[in-house]
Amino acid sequence: MFREKIKVLDCTIRDGGLINNHDFDLKFVRHVYAAVSAAGVDYMELGYKNSRKLLPAEEFGMWKFCADDDIRRVVEGVESPAKISVMVDVGRVDPDEIKPRKESPVQMIRVASYVKEIDKAIALVNEFHDKGYETTVNVMAISRALETEVDEALAQLEQEAKADVVYVVDSFGSLYQETTEFLVKKYKSVLKSKEIGIHTHNNLQLGFSNTIEAVIHGANYLDATIYGIGRGAGNCPLELLLGFLKNPKFDLRPILEIIQQEFLPLREKIEWGYIIPYAITGMFDEHPRAAIAVRNTPKKDDYRDFYESIADASAE
Amino acid sequence: MFREKIKVLDCTIRDGGLINNHDFDLKFVRHVYAAVSAAGVDYMELGYKNSRKLLPAEEFGMWKFCADDDIRRVVEGVESPAKISVMVDVGRVDPDEIKPRKESPVQMIRVASYVKEIDKAIALVNEFHDKGYETTVNVMAISRALETEVDEALAQLEQEAKADVVYVVDSFGSLYQETTEFLVKKYKSVLKSKEIGIHTHNNLQLGFSNTIEAVIHGANYLDATIYGIGRGAGNCPLELLLGFLKNPKFDLRPILEIIQQEFLPLREKIEWGYIIPYAITGMFDEHPRAAIAVRNTPKKDDYRDFYESIADASAE
Repeated sequence: MFREKIKVLDCTIRDGGLINNHDFDLKFVRHVYAAVSAAGVDYMELGYKNSRKLLPAEEFGMWKFCADDDIRRVVEGVESPAKISVMVDVGRVDPDEIKPRKESPVQMIRVASYVKEIDKAIALVNEFHDKGYETTVNVMAISRALETEVDEALAQLEQEAKADVVYVVDSFGSLYQETTEFLVKKYKSVLKSKEIGIHTHNNLQLGFSNTIEAVIHGANYLDATIYGIGRGAGNCPLELLLGFLKNPKFDLRPILEIIQQEFLPLREKIEWGYIIPYAITGMFDEHPRAAIAVRNTPKKDDYRDFYESIADASAE
Repeated sequence: MFREKIKVLDCTIRDGGLINNHDFDLKFVRHVYAAVSAAGVDYMELGYKNSRKLLPAEEFGMWKFCADDDIRRVVEGVESPAKISVMVDVGRVDPDEIKPRKESPVQMIRVASYVKEIDKAIALVNEFHDKGYETTVNVMAISRALETEVDEALAQLEQEAKADVVYVVDSFGSLYQETTEFLVKKYKSVLKSKEIGIHTHNNLQLGFSNTIEAVIHGANYLDATIYGIGRGAGNCPLELLLGFLKNPKFDLRPILEIIQQEFLPLREKIEWGYIIPYAITGMFDEHPRAAIAVRNTPKKDDYRDFYESIADASAE
């Protein structure tokens, strides 16, 4: 697959940070930035730029807040084609703390929003756009929203939002290729002035497949993480995506090298990937929180019990 | 997805046996048979029914040969809807050793064949059909065959073979959903009197996705293995497939239970699944043998080196 307009966004540090409260050390983050840069990836997302005033700051590492100076320490001295992206959550960001683009090391701000918060997301994204940033709206938990609400939100995004990109976000890792196709086609049909993005989770081993499916139907902004790191089942693996995309600007080798050097040892310390309780929440289109909880108990591998508890809860 | 005609074939013991020379002990095989039976799976394949005279028999466990008496020891006393399947390799089976269906515990014989051996495969499958068995031809390494050879083989299978099912076999785990769609549609257009089957490998985390893709385009015989066990990257995971298929005859819970009881500990002893060298051979549409070899050396995790060696070999 080669299409000039396709952009790859590495969110290793941002989505991986959901496992460890955004507490990666600077050396690790610089190593990832160097590898992603050498691989020719278009964007790298470091974390959330939420406000220390709106969260219990002592509970999180620095990538929950992405201070401009911390970002500068990451990028300093590294030759890179990758633009820096940060994410913000509706209700956890103070837009007054976001400097104009020209005074910041950040090039892109992505607003994560549920369908029902779309008004607030549009206000935020327009403010960031006016400060000079590239912007996206990432519509979360799309699989659980009512179709009429999705239709209304998309129409509003097209008419009112200055965002460059609107993302399909498979928060629960429950999409199959047919549902991905349905959503991307719906987005394309309404969002005529925007690019479409895709962010998948890998609960059902469909993260990479759903990303390809979205590309086939016209999505041009593709999220992925090194070795698929991310909360729960993780994300679309960057190495598979770069192996699929035929654009010669990408070089897979730096990613393979850092998997060996950093991600194999890290996987021994924190877990993500194909783990049965996450597959089960994906099958039932449920938030992974019950699976995350059970993985911290002695019953972490009682898969039949867990299945029955989720099936019962879903039937209620 | 619900379609009455869909049949699921568990090949845990057969494809898993490629990792350990078909040397699973009887207790383990009986446990798998009980779980697969309780789950309502349609077929279970135990191994190869090759001839002890045509192979160095001392190098293999009993499931390379699947003696009728060994099969009887597996099924004895277990209530089951699952029919027993065995595979044979062209050139390694002596058809005279295969008893008529009525004297055997086997219901289905599957002939694995490369495109260039299709004449021999047809002769074998017709002989087994005439002995009363359900039969399939599993066309291996389809991604590497020339299209004109595939077309000729399919036409010949349609005209001359008494097989009930012809399989698309993604031997190298290199198919994407578009190539899977292309092949299944091609099979359907030629093999009007046969059912189509799909057997995937999981090198690119696309084993499950390609199985769904084949179902969408009309394949009705679906291979899978528990926890995705199989040589190299393994296969389509049975638990994901049963979770996707909506036929109420399937029950996922016995499979989840046996994953916990048997496959988690087994995975500590033998490896399969998402392992980077297998992903690399999949990307290059190469046999996994180089990846299997490197995994038995101290350089097993030198992914960049391995990538470069495969890229060089492919470019020669």
